[in-house]
Amino acid sequence: AIGMAHRGRLNVLANIAGKTYGQIFREFEGNIDPRTVQGSGDVKYHLGAEGEFEAESGETVKVSVAANPSHLEAVDPVLEGIARAKQDVLDQGSAYPVLPLLVHGDAAFAGQGVVAETLNLSQLRGYRTGGTVHLVVNNQVGFTTSPGSSRSSLYCTDVARMVQAPIFHVNGDDPEACVRVARLAWEYRQKFHKDVVIDMVCYRRHGHNEGDDPSYTQPMMYAKIDQHRSVRKLYTESLVKRGHMTLEEAEAALDDFQARLQDALDETRSSPEEHMAAEPPAPRGVLPHIDTGVDREVLDQVFAALDSTPEDFNLHPKLAKQFDTRRKMWESGEVDWGLAESLAFGTLLLEGIDIRLAGQDTRRGTFAHRHATLHDHTNGAEYVPLGNIADDQGKLWIYDSLLSEYAALGFEYGYSVENPKAMVAWEAQFGDFVNGAQIIIDQFIVAAADKWRQDSGLIMLLPHGFEGQGPEHSSARMERFLLLCAEDNIQVVNATTAGQFFHLLRRQMHQEVRRPLVVFTPKSLLRAKPARSTIEELTHGSFEEVLPDPAVASGAIDTDDVRRVVLAAGKVAQDAIAARDERQVPVAIVRVEQIYPWPATRLAEELDRYPKATELIWLQEEPENMGPWNFASRRLYEGFGDSHKIQRVSRYESGSPATGSNKIHHQEQAMILDKALSY
Amino acid sequence: AIGMAHRGRLNVLANIAGKTYGQIFREFEGNIDPRTVQGSGDVKYHLGAEGEFEAESGETVKVSVAANPSHLEAVDPVLEGIARAKQDVLDQGSAYPVLPLLVHGDAAFAGQGVVAETLNLSQLRGYRTGGTVHLVVNNQVGFTTSPGSSRSSLYCTDVARMVQAPIFHVNGDDPEACVRVARLAWEYRQKFHKDVVIDMVCYRRHGHNEGDDPSYTQPMMYAKIDQHRSVRKLYTESLVKRGHMTLEEAEAALDDFQARLQDALDETRSSPEEHMAAEPPAPRGVLPHIDTGVDREVLDQVFAALDSTPEDFNLHPKLAKQFDTRRKMWESGEVDWGLAESLAFGTLLLEGIDIRLAGQDTRRGTFAHRHATLHDHTNGAEYVPLGNIADDQGKLWIYDSLLSEYAALGFEYGYSVENPKAMVAWEAQFGDFVNGAQIIIDQFIVAAADKWRQDSGLIMLLPHGFEGQGPEHSSARMERFLLLCAEDNIQVVNATTAGQFFHLLRRQMHQEVRRPLVVFTPKSLLRAKPARSTIEELTHGSFEEVLPDPAVASGAIDTDDVRRVVLAAGKVAQDAIAARDERQVPVAIVRVEQIYPWPATRLAEELDRYPKATELIWLQEEPENMGPWNFASRRLYEGFGDSHKIQRVSRYESGSPATGSNKIHHQEQAMILDKALSY
Ligand SMILES: Cc1ncc(C[n+]2csc(CCOP(=O)(O)OP(=O)(O)O)c2C)c(N)n1
Ligand SMILES: Cc1ncc(C[n+]2csc(CCOP(=O)(O)OP(=O)(O)O)c2C)c(N)n1
Repeated sequence: AIGMAHRGRLNVLANIAGKTYGQIFREFEGNIDPRTVQGSGDVKYHLGAEGEFEAESGETVKVSVAANPSHLEAVDPVLEGIARAKQDVLDQGSAYPVLPLLVHGDAAFAGQGVVAETLNLSQLRGYRTGGTVHLVVNNQVGFTTSPGSSRSSLYCTDVARMVQAPIFHVNGDDPEACVRVARLAWEYRQKFHKDVVIDMVCYRRHGHNEGDDPSYTQPMMYAKIDQHRSVRKLYTESLVKRGHMTLEEAEAALDDFQARLQDALDETRSSPEEHMAAEPPAPRGVLPHIDTGVDREVLDQVFAALDSTPEDFNLHPKLAKQFDTRRKMWESGEVDWGLAESLAFGTLLLEGIDIRLAGQDTRRGTFAHRHATLHDHTNGAEYVPLGNIADDQGKLWIYDSLLSEYAALGFEYGYSVENPKAMVAWEAQFGDFVNGAQIIIDQFIVAAADKWRQDSGLIMLLPHGFEGQGPEHSSARMERFLLLCAEDNIQVVNATTAGQFFHLLRRQMHQEVRRPLVVFTPKSLLRAKPARSTIEELTHGSFEEVLPDPAVASGAIDTDDVRRVVLAAGKVAQDAIAARDERQVPVAIVRVEQIYPWPATRLAEELDRYPKATELIWLQEEPENMGPWNFASRRLYEGFGDSHKIQRVSRYESGSPATGSNKIHHQEQAMILDKALSY
Repeated sequence: AIGMAHRGRLNVLANIAGKTYGQIFREFEGNIDPRTVQGSGDVKYHLGAEGEFEAESGETVKVSVAANPSHLEAVDPVLEGIARAKQDVLDQGSAYPVLPLLVHGDAAFAGQGVVAETLNLSQLRGYRTGGTVHLVVNNQVGFTTSPGSSRSSLYCTDVARMVQAPIFHVNGDDPEACVRVARLAWEYRQKFHKDVVIDMVCYRRHGHNEGDDPSYTQPMMYAKIDQHRSVRKLYTESLVKRGHMTLEEAEAALDDFQARLQDALDETRSSPEEHMAAEPPAPRGVLPHIDTGVDREVLDQVFAALDSTPEDFNLHPKLAKQFDTRRKMWESGEVDWGLAESLAFGTLLLEGIDIRLAGQDTRRGTFAHRHATLHDHTNGAEYVPLGNIADDQGKLWIYDSLLSEYAALGFEYGYSVENPKAMVAWEAQFGDFVNGAQIIIDQFIVAAADKWRQDSGLIMLLPHGFEGQGPEHSSARMERFLLLCAEDNIQVVNATTAGQFFHLLRRQMHQEVRRPLVVFTPKSLLRAKPARSTIEELTHGSFEEVLPDPAVASGAIDTDDVRRVVLAAGKVAQDAIAARDERQVPVAIVRVEQIYPWPATRLAEELDRYPKATELIWLQEEPENMGPWNFASRRLYEGFGDSHKIQRVSRYESGSPATGSNKIHHQEQAMILDKALSY
């Protein structure tokens, strides 16, 4: 599996991955693939490929080149995730039968922090791939920038010293030396299963791209390069001198090669069909519901596994107490958030689905609500209850990740692409930190389907909610994800009950389409009573994009009394329900659990319940310029602008998501609830 | 100058930076500073401080601790920028009189890629600060995560091997050893002016935070720690044993310390004033214009400097030709984009303002339009025309940056905070890559005023525009900046003429407020005729937030004929003007040059010119879900919803900013222009 940037990519695609010259020329000519719709696709030097390389010996090896964006080095962790997934599927343990090969530029390798993050993955239990071969195509310049401005280290490869990787510096003008070093690197990888680096010192003959004249900025270097004979010429000469080839053979080979290129080009040019790109199809929006309930016996089986430890295992005394409490909750017929998640995982595992979940402190859970891995209190031995439900269950891989977002999320994305049958989830410590991985979101998660028709069912769990913890422990910036929503590319959800989360996770593995799921997960709702569900809610039904006001079902509110309907997503909706119950005002609180695809029809049905309502309020915890309001407002005006007066209740607009003061937070929270409920 | 995260921060603030206990306790109690408004402020362990440390000897040293966000290690490059700015202001050359000290956690130091990026700054001409001392408070755990899951290297400090920094591992239980090692590190830094690392191996006595019980996940480690005597006790014992202190003295010191804390606490508690945080003031919006024109003689002086090289300097022959062309343009009374920028820089330099500009390939310019540094064609010697205008001019620092966005932007941000008098600008290669620095934008640039009342006049130059170059060479995602706009925190501009850019740059240094300026800079407009301005336009006037349709001034359009007004920002506005001129339709094209603060009043004035207009179109190149539309639409409905029918013309919604096909790009561009102009 190969990950690489622009330099030399077409060469690799053609000569290693077996992409035809014709195909590449067609991309150059820009002939429009009749399936293409406006806005989509990617430039030719970003596309991936799958092929087979046949050696002279006749032996073959499968080659895949990962699609990648312009963002240099971003593909590194993605490729590692792809390699790991391939290995997990092949399941040959420490044989590591798939070789990850990363090809880098010298300036990018030295400059981008994700390189260090990716190197740091290399030996970790949750991420290792048996050693990556890094090949740096060191042309001693980055666009117009000299090494002296690109790095503080002697070699461009010095960052690899952090993992004590051997680094081979080799002369790119000597192909045989390069091959020897490549063999050595491969052997090292096979023997020690660690990363190894080749620094191929060479030069760039022309400018950075077609239009670029490098002699403006590197006059001395390019004066030399102009004088320097090409690798092909130098090597041909040496082969001829050594008598391995005659001059005639060399010339024939060159002519033959050029003839093949010319043929392919002529062929391409002779079929210059001119298509107009079509309008993209309308998004499908909300998908039909599927039943994701699970029989009570199966739930019981999972719970039993969760509730037991091996004979000789010493559970932490405090945890033992918590397990007692959990058992009592279960016996009383209820589940909280953490239990619902475990039950979703457990039931999927019993269906034979593998699950991979990684994130900072994810085994225990940032909010100590998961405890997926138990530690023996006296000897530290680990036990994973969900790994021990039944003999023929799916595999559960759960890891505490390194302290990275960029590489960590990139890895899970790659994994999710390559192993479509597994459930793959990444969890942020707090959703606020997800912006460290913005490139992975922008360039891969939301865009890969549009650019490369590359699907992923990745789940992102982003703890979110305004609870007075300050500017960076409040918001996963849902507004930013919503800006990126288009063409059904992702799903954005902020569920408010344990049961909803259970069905949501199961839906992700059972719905017909595969697309990333971004979940804004709760903090205080993890333990709050109103967020609990009954066991019955898990045995049937499905995830509901919109939840009706519970006071209507209970009869506490008469729908004919309702003049105002408040829409809200997440914890603030639960807060509003509680405040309304306390004030006993006839305001209906409707929860929008899925924001994208936007549940227009369901909302309309829900509003139909309140024929006398004239006011529609969008309530959010976030400041005016953040939160779902920007996204929701247009849709609300479109859907209900004629029938309702539409208003927003939010915090004041702000450059920072939340106040640093817990006391001010509570003042603000009281204010927005008051605005939403009083009239 | 110190940059550090949460661990030990209050200690440093109190005991090194001289913050009083009372102040810290007040922050703990959460007493609300009467100046605070809703939404603002930050948690206590993020705030910065300036103070003076007095040694036992009576000598003092100024100490400043940089404010930082929760995002671990994000402050690293910012602190380096601050240190560099302090040094530039002190101007003592290679004495490097300011010591940057970065305090890290072990997991964060190993995990976050920005650490490697910051190390990579350390020896670069544009970034060096004479050596940073890195102190890793290595408590051998990251929240609940063990080193085995945090890193692939032996030591948490191994990443520093990339720059061959000496790394001292020292026992945190031995305070005197720590002091010795700190001295050694300091002496190394003073002698070699390179980075040096201290790995202080210690432990965390309690949980990660107040609520955390570490024995769930690290039972063995915490069993040991519970048995382990504290550093204070161990050290007191050893002092007593060595006869340096009596037991009574030790106890008295402890009692005295606790009494001081208690006093401060009592004092804080006795004044528990309860304020309500106020509503934030309404944003000021567009500021009054200031005249940023420059006398023709001064412009001539700058141009002369731009147009000449030293006697013996061999200009690249192609560049010599380009300079000839530029001279002819100047003589004909015109300036293009690159020249306007140089004139803005030159005139500011002549006013004594220092300028710092850094970015990838910035000296030549990504699009070869700047050529700020000339390279002698025969010997490579460098010459910077703008550095040689007059003897008493400001300093011009212009650098090709390393291939980083995160550290590179962070550095400039820090610099801009600390050196308010200088013009500080960072340029992206393409604006698309700015998301690699998303943390610097979110946590510092747009939020620092709200969180820390910390101002910056940083300029971000983001090449932007849909020109068929694919998904990642088209959009700097203006929509994302616009979501972050609030409280007058930044300025977002997409100027369409050379003259506008000239006035904009000058405005940034002459307006009364200091706030970051985000400029979406052009690509093809760099050279396009319509983007040129006359020299006269530079000699008077100011940056205009809204530009009227030139066809009105020229009389080509009669305002009474106009039924439709098209608003647009950036290159597409110029495209629309050209297409309209060609079609000769009476559609007015009004350019919105500044998007935030939104020029509501100017737009209203502009629309007043067209009394018969009933249609108002927002035209953008971006897909529907991107571009300024989301931000502008609400403001347009508010301002003109009653008087005009408001519509949007854009590309179709898309998960990826732009198509990968140049041909499709042109089809799309033709479509949106057609939609905007035909009726
Ligand atoms: C993250 C990121 N930042 C900036 C760029 C813009 N860019 C494209 S190529 C290039 C120089 C690359 O130099 P190097 O890594 O040495 O590779 P080479 O092009 O020399 O093969 C830059 C800065 C990019 N593609 N990605
Ligand atoms: C970029 C980023 N990601 C995640 C977090 C969440 N977080 C806060 S503290 C912490 C563990 C820090 O461990 P370490 O660096 O060893 O410092 P310590 O707390 O042990 O002093 C994490 C993951 C964060 N603050 N910043």
